[in-house]
Amino acid sequence: MSVIRSEIRPGAYFDSAVLMQLQRGLTQLPGVADAGVVMATPANCELLEQSGLLTADAKQAGVNDLLIVVRAESEDGAERALTHVDELLTRRRSAIAQEFRPKSLETAFKQMPEAGWVLISVPGRFAAGVAHEAIQLGRHVFLYSDNVSLGDEVALKQAARAKGLLVMGPDCGTAIIGGVGLGFANRVRRGRIGLVGASGTGLQAITSHIHGLGAGVSHAIGTGGRDLKHEVGAATARQALDVLTRDTGTDVIVLVSKPPAPEVATQLLAAARATGKPVVVDFIGYPPPGRQLAGLHFATTLREAAEVAVKLARGKAGKASDGDTGSSPSPQPPISAALRGPWSPAGRGSSAVSSSLITNQPITAPFLRGLFSGGTLAYESMLGLQALLAPLYSNVPISEGQRLPDLLHSQGHTILDLGEDVFTVGRLHPMLDNDLRLRRLRQEAADPEVGVILLDVVLGEGAHPDPAAELAPGIAEAKRGRSLEVVAIVIGTDEDPQDLGSQVQRLAQAGAIVFQSTTEAVDYVSRRLGRDTGAANPVPVALDRFDQTPFAALNVGLESFYTSLVGQGAAALHVDWRPPAGGNERLMAILAKLKKQ
Amino acid sequence: MSVIRSEIRPGAYFDSAVLMQLQRGLTQLPGVADAGVVMATPANCELLEQSGLLTADAKQAGVNDLLIVVRAESEDGAERALTHVDELLTRRRSAIAQEFRPKSLETAFKQMPEAGWVLISVPGRFAAGVAHEAIQLGRHVFLYSDNVSLGDEVALKQAARAKGLLVMGPDCGTAIIGGVGLGFANRVRRGRIGLVGASGTGLQAITSHIHGLGAGVSHAIGTGGRDLKHEVGAATARQALDVLTRDTGTDVIVLVSKPPAPEVATQLLAAARATGKPVVVDFIGYPPPGRQLAGLHFATTLREAAEVAVKLARGKAGKASDGDTGSSPSPQPPISAALRGPWSPAGRGSSAVSSSLITNQPITAPFLRGLFSGGTLAYESMLGLQALLAPLYSNVPISEGQRLPDLLHSQGHTILDLGEDVFTVGRLHPMLDNDLRLRRLRQEAADPEVGVILLDVVLGEGAHPDPAAELAPGIAEAKRGRSLEVVAIVIGTDEDPQDLGSQVQRLAQAGAIVFQSTTEAVDYVSRRLGRDTGAANPVPVALDRFDQTPFAALNVGLESFYTSLVGQGAAALHVDWRPPAGGNERLMAILAKLKKQ
Repeated sequence: MSVIRSEIRPGAYFDSAVLMQLQRGLTQLPGVADAGVVMATPANCELLEQSGLLTADAKQAGVNDLLIVVRAESEDGAERALTHVDELLTRRRSAIAQEFRPKSLETAFKQMPEAGWVLISVPGRFAAGVAHEAIQLGRHVFLYSDNVSLGDEVALKQAARAKGLLVMGPDCGTAIIGGVGLGFANRVRRGRIGLVGASGTGLQAITSHIHGLGAGVSHAIGTGGRDLKHEVGAATARQALDVLTRDTGTDVIVLVSKPPAPEVATQLLAAARATGKPVVVDFIGYPPPGRQLAGLHFATTLREAAEVAVKLARGKAGKASDGDTGSSPSPQPPISAALRGPWSPAGRGSSAVSSSLITNQPITAPFLRGLFSGGTLAYESMLGLQALLAPLYSNVPISEGQRLPDLLHSQGHTILDLGEDVFTVGRLHPMLDNDLRLRRLRQEAADPEVGVILLDVVLGEGAHPDPAAELAPGIAEAKRGRSLEVVAIVIGTDEDPQDLGSQVQRLAQAGAIVFQSTTEAVDYVSRRLGRDTGAANPVPVALDRFDQTPFAALNVGLESFYTSLVGQGAAALHVDWRPPAGGNERLMAILAKLKKQ
Repeated sequence: MSVIRSEIRPGAYFDSAVLMQLQRGLTQLPGVADAGVVMATPANCELLEQSGLLTADAKQAGVNDLLIVVRAESEDGAERALTHVDELLTRRRSAIAQEFRPKSLETAFKQMPEAGWVLISVPGRFAAGVAHEAIQLGRHVFLYSDNVSLGDEVALKQAARAKGLLVMGPDCGTAIIGGVGLGFANRVRRGRIGLVGASGTGLQAITSHIHGLGAGVSHAIGTGGRDLKHEVGAATARQALDVLTRDTGTDVIVLVSKPPAPEVATQLLAAARATGKPVVVDFIGYPPPGRQLAGLHFATTLREAAEVAVKLARGKAGKASDGDTGSSPSPQPPISAALRGPWSPAGRGSSAVSSSLITNQPITAPFLRGLFSGGTLAYESMLGLQALLAPLYSNVPISEGQRLPDLLHSQGHTILDLGEDVFTVGRLHPMLDNDLRLRRLRQEAADPEVGVILLDVVLGEGAHPDPAAELAPGIAEAKRGRSLEVVAIVIGTDEDPQDLGSQVQRLAQAGAIVFQSTTEAVDYVSRRLGRDTGAANPVPVALDRFDQTPFAALNVGLESFYTSLVGQGAAALHVDWRPPAGGNERLMAILAKLKKQ
């Protein structure tokens, strides 16, 4: 037989590290079978209930109360354990050998005005308040606390952006700023690879691998796991990219996250391209549109992200002297630009026709329309384009939000698979019959919003004996009298009955830019149309606090983070934080209002 | 003003190529603005309606009737066009110079008994019937027709599998069998790369790229786009993998598809591993779990799939003499197997402790349980494991079907992220506090169905000062008295305060197998637990028809496919097919029943 006894201490606050020590201390007492020492939040009470520790008495505890529960072999043992709590608390010595223990951020900053950063790891329900205060005081925030609402996150990041400040988090586990690790961080050498991560252990694994490969890290900026959700819109990630763009100590950027919201991914990748530095992307679980697209390098694992980044950084270092910017590699030139030799029945000279097609003049009409005969080619193009262009629609959408509402009318960027059942009932497949495609080509070309039309042309046995004979005049007609680019992907071999060379040449002569794979074509199209459409960072984050020596920060919450900062040679001050208004949330709200005025 | 006139010819059947020619012929007549010549299926009538051609008269046409509609400038012009139809039909000369024109498969096979294959491209609603007949007559089917029901597909493939026959399709655009292209196919040289594709233009693009890279194709087997759906269960793809496994002319296999149903992907990848040949996987849009995992090579684009396959085939060719089987490359050895030198405070000798842990003894308990402190490490592991193990559950599922119903009890293979908010409310993160993990470790080890437990250990600033001190005894205890493998992923650097080497050593001494990345650990685990759980192919497909010379096939449907076969030097016979029972579906059903008896 065991007995359970509990005690409630109203309004007593301890951080979770202290509570864990207390709980362990009690469990180790002779005759004690189990113990719980928690702040009596609903979640903690549920956990106690699962362990069979939530007695009727214990259920009376409120969210700001300390709840101690003990299961012992005897009444005596239980009572002895409860009375032991104070002894344990007295015996516990703070790890912090700091003489002055400020109780508020304001007094702490008076003591250490040079502190540009605030580490916050108080319980989630108090964390937003502390973070808002830090922002008001003009400091960057590393917000380790989890269980912060999405609404609070959005509000915090808006307030911070307006002041050129970073909010890393909530639920941000790690960062390395100027060589100093915040929260959980591996010790890695300094170097020229900068990281942005909506993924704590993702950043830790990549930075560890980079170190293991002999390279180093400039800054690793955490954003919190929800930063790339639609509601937050990658607010911190975009600021972080901007910081690393301007940081002269960063040559290569790594961007790591779990799969972002699709439209956020598109915006963030556009921002990544706009950095002008090589960017390695590991959106874990996001289907990469290729190893390399539009100057972005896509990795499929954390280790690979590190390997690619180190390789790029070494390539950069080797080239540093010749002034190469290391930005996006040149795209694959279209095959139509190299029309000569064996492919040109008319001999040389024809190359001029097509190479003159490649201009750097901007395309004024914003949208792409893709008219495909091959379903897989359409799908592979969608995969690439969804990373780079928005809004994107299709009759073969990858996500439901991309479904084209009316098949007869394109909108935004649209990719049509004209070989889908709905288009082929009772008629020939578009690889055999170009009629439907030519009609749609005319329709799209008549739309003044269309800047680029993308087609595939699949040669080979069984297919149309001479697609260029029908498509080339259609392309020439579509381009007539207006500024429109037509890009063609030709799939075929030199042994195909249609004569690959002649097909390419006639398409090119009609004004098409011809590639031999979707990847190359998508790369080209996205360079012509893709723009960074996201909101600009209103106030750039000043770089001086990133390389401040020594790095100086306040710590509010877990003492171990303070110890870690000091151990790394940083200047740090621990704030002896207690819940405001004794943890009473209504009073807290009133206090917060008063402070704002 | 324009006038519209229509004509209905009840029960007249023409294939869609002929109808297209008729329609074009009418449209080119002077004074004719538009014309439609279609079988009056609902879908075709809808298309006519969209073009404004579906008059009240035309609406009377039934599904087996030929419907001709003309829009002309005058009454006269319209009438002239309608009377012109017969002239056009007479003028049209069949492309087929074949003297004997059998009207049924049975008579055709009497003429050409060696034909092992039947190409079927009749309208969708008739296609299943023809395919069933071909299967009954013991022939492989290439089913180009689309608009065939999923139920019909399942029934056809079941019937075929039971007889060791292949049904490629429905909606199978392409195949190359023994050098002969079926349907749409590029002319590529023969070689040692075999392909399986649920994606027509995917196969065409990859085979074209392989040819462009100077290599060649043994067989390219299409499966139809729905083969990897749950209902069909990759029936044809599994047979095709089996064919390529036994085919001595195939060294390297490429598997291409749009994203398969998750559980089908797992089964198919297990079957791919079981081939013992290198397999390049391009599930377009499926997040690859890495470049290489458990002997599978994941490509992210069609072009890359070709490049990797060619590279592997060339590697094979170079090694052909030394009898290497070219199968799965050896996995990365665990770091714990190399414990010596700088990492071992006890000097040499300790390596024996850990290398003896790696055995090839099969694990009898079937399931994996992963207990993670790092969310991203959990997620990256899920990505790899979902490709290789089923059923897989988690509190951080990638797809909803993987959601663990009860967080307190694991089931099947389970990956838990113990750093998720729900586990950390009011308690320390598992990187700081091993308590929750140790409890769960005991719980999982007590489950007799558990064969492997996977843990991560994240070192660095801010983390637990000595996780091995707590985890190693827990691991030793879990393994005591039972057959259980514990695999640990340690993330850290040689400069971390916990001393990476000592952490690894103590975990290994406790019996853990230690890796430094999730990819290596997942690779190891899947080799220990992953099995091909799919239904075996009941009757192996005989290989003789794959390299038959000359290749011999019947063609039912589009004449152009016959012409293409003959042009490639294949023996072919075109069947002069008409809809059975004049296209009357009730009568067809009765006829089909009679035939079966």
